[in-house]
Amino acid sequence: METIRISLGDRSYDICSGRGLLSKKDLFIQYVSKKNVAIITNETVGPLYLKKLRKSLSDATSIIEIVLKDGEEFKNQDSLDIIYEALLNNKYGRDSILIALGGGVVGDITGYAAATYMRGIDFIQVPTTLLSQVDSSVGGKTGINHRLGKNMIGAFYQPKRVIIDVDCLESLPDIELSAGLAEVIKYGLIRDPIFFEWLEQNVNNLLKKHPDSLIEAITRSCNNKAAVVTEDEFETEKGIRATLNLGHTFGHAIETALGYGKWLHGQAVAAGMIMASHMSMQLGFIEEQDFTRIKNILKAANLPINPPDLSQDQFLDLMASDKKNKNGKISLILLRSLGEAFQTEDYDMKVLEKTINTKIF
Amino acid sequence: METIRISLGDRSYDICSGRGLLSKKDLFIQYVSKKNVAIITNETVGPLYLKKLRKSLSDATSIIEIVLKDGEEFKNQDSLDIIYEALLNNKYGRDSILIALGGGVVGDITGYAAATYMRGIDFIQVPTTLLSQVDSSVGGKTGINHRLGKNMIGAFYQPKRVIIDVDCLESLPDIELSAGLAEVIKYGLIRDPIFFEWLEQNVNNLLKKHPDSLIEAITRSCNNKAAVVTEDEFETEKGIRATLNLGHTFGHAIETALGYGKWLHGQAVAAGMIMASHMSMQLGFIEEQDFTRIKNILKAANLPINPPDLSQDQFLDLMASDKKNKNGKISLILLRSLGEAFQTEDYDMKVLEKTINTKIF
Repeated sequence: METIRISLGDRSYDICSGRGLLSKKDLFIQYVSKKNVAIITNETVGPLYLKKLRKSLSDATSIIEIVLKDGEEFKNQDSLDIIYEALLNNKYGRDSILIALGGGVVGDITGYAAATYMRGIDFIQVPTTLLSQVDSSVGGKTGINHRLGKNMIGAFYQPKRVIIDVDCLESLPDIELSAGLAEVIKYGLIRDPIFFEWLEQNVNNLLKKHPDSLIEAITRSCNNKAAVVTEDEFETEKGIRATLNLGHTFGHAIETALGYGKWLHGQAVAAGMIMASHMSMQLGFIEEQDFTRIKNILKAANLPINPPDLSQDQFLDLMASDKKNKNGKISLILLRSLGEAFQTEDYDMKVLEKTINTKIF
Repeated sequence: METIRISLGDRSYDICSGRGLLSKKDLFIQYVSKKNVAIITNETVGPLYLKKLRKSLSDATSIIEIVLKDGEEFKNQDSLDIIYEALLNNKYGRDSILIALGGGVVGDITGYAAATYMRGIDFIQVPTTLLSQVDSSVGGKTGINHRLGKNMIGAFYQPKRVIIDVDCLESLPDIELSAGLAEVIKYGLIRDPIFFEWLEQNVNNLLKKHPDSLIEAITRSCNNKAAVVTEDEFETEKGIRATLNLGHTFGHAIETALGYGKWLHGQAVAAGMIMASHMSMQLGFIEEQDFTRIKNILKAANLPINPPDLSQDQFLDLMASDKKNKNGKISLILLRSLGEAFQTEDYDMKVLEKTINTKIF
């Protein structure tokens, strides 16, 4: 088992990753013993792992299961209300604990419920998709979508522990594995060129779900994210944490334009990273051969390298509502080199427009 | 002008109190200059003070006004949605700032909107009732009510500054002034016997809205609350912050049983403090003469000293859903002496029942 300590003062916690961790009662006991526990999961993941997880929680005072519908379109106030009502109806107090068993949607909504129920209760993340294992495990971003924008309502709130059982990835559809790889590749691009090279060599092992390769990719991803987050927990003006959003401003526009669920988040981010890389190349920060390497690894990971057919106006309008924006300018994360990213609002709009209108990368 | 510094590390802020502060542009400028500002107020307070406040915000990039309905029954998800929608429709980003202009309801809901909009934006409190000036100014408790319980959804989130203009109290109805005095008296009871004596001597000046007396009462109240909150910001197991809830477990039961708006919060707390004092007397912690002093000052402040007509079962059932409870026992704040409070679940239920059934104090 690998353990990464996320050092955030009194909000510090461990990420444990390895095989068979769902059955390791020891990893859960100190948080659930004599507590009221609520497991929040969805209709896809619940039937696969609830039984196994419950066995590891036998020291809890009580366990309730809250099974949400599966999909980004359910990451909303209605699902949050289902959680609040279940907790209140069961008279769960401030010493209760929530466990998120599922992917990013379950993790985000559970974390937000924990952040806001009775002004904050404990929660544990048990992420079951590659994307949530390498992304939402670190950083404490929790929240829900609003009809007027994705992730608009939320809080920074840290879990007590993250338990990553890579055996859960056995049941993960290939397309979701690829989507997770988009975020893994992102860490190489924004701050770890050596990891990027490792990924170029190991992408096929990862697609074959080789457990040791997966554990290594997850650990290196989480370590990268942890380094960023501990430097800039609340995504301040410094713009350090913002670099984690490489490809996301484009990606969110794609997701919003298509409607949730048409493209996976990781797929939209992959196309977005290509667009950000294309701009970085236009602006002279990276070479064409870097751009080609980026394109090739995303292709190898079975990820889209072209955005869907959106007009320039659609792109610009949707990007204008991004949370990073300041003073009405679209803030972007670009690459200074393959392995280094930065945030900027200072670029020629024509460059952005050219990237948007470049249809075949 | 009096300034109290609330020291909470990087969440520290100042409480400024005095006369005519709404018109002191200097107090606002550093937070609103070149920012998008949203003032959240209600239909009662807005018409009285919005115009004056807007003059002090002339350096803002934009100002929107969000006017909620007045009353505890509007401290809910629907009002929160009105705020979120206004912010999103106006494309307000993370560098926007909210200003709460009103009493406790406006302050709690605005603070919670600030805590959760885009995972947290800045806000300033401009409390216009005595209750909100001495209570919600300090401590960062924000939130809304849920149909299944009061204040069940919320977050700990600190304002950037609190600006208390005692001139706003001129328009405050007498009954609300009295309700505010309940919380003022509470600080004397739980930790400041000298302040309690001062209040016994000055309660009539306060009822006459003598500005210097009001400023002194507000400052001493905020200082007391600040001392408690800085010791125990997140209301942990230590039970220090919990002492601020003297009378509140009984009081919340009264408010819930009657329905919001029948009794003011401060009135319910006054009756609740009498009940907690009665239990403390039964248990031998305070003398009958202490109990009489408590009764007399609450009477002098025109506050109720008897709860409304609820049955024992109603009381116990409603108190059982309090957030402080642990392991199914009703946790109470009692007085160890006049001027010292403590939290306990370790008492004879018969004593609680006797207090509930004592109808004339």
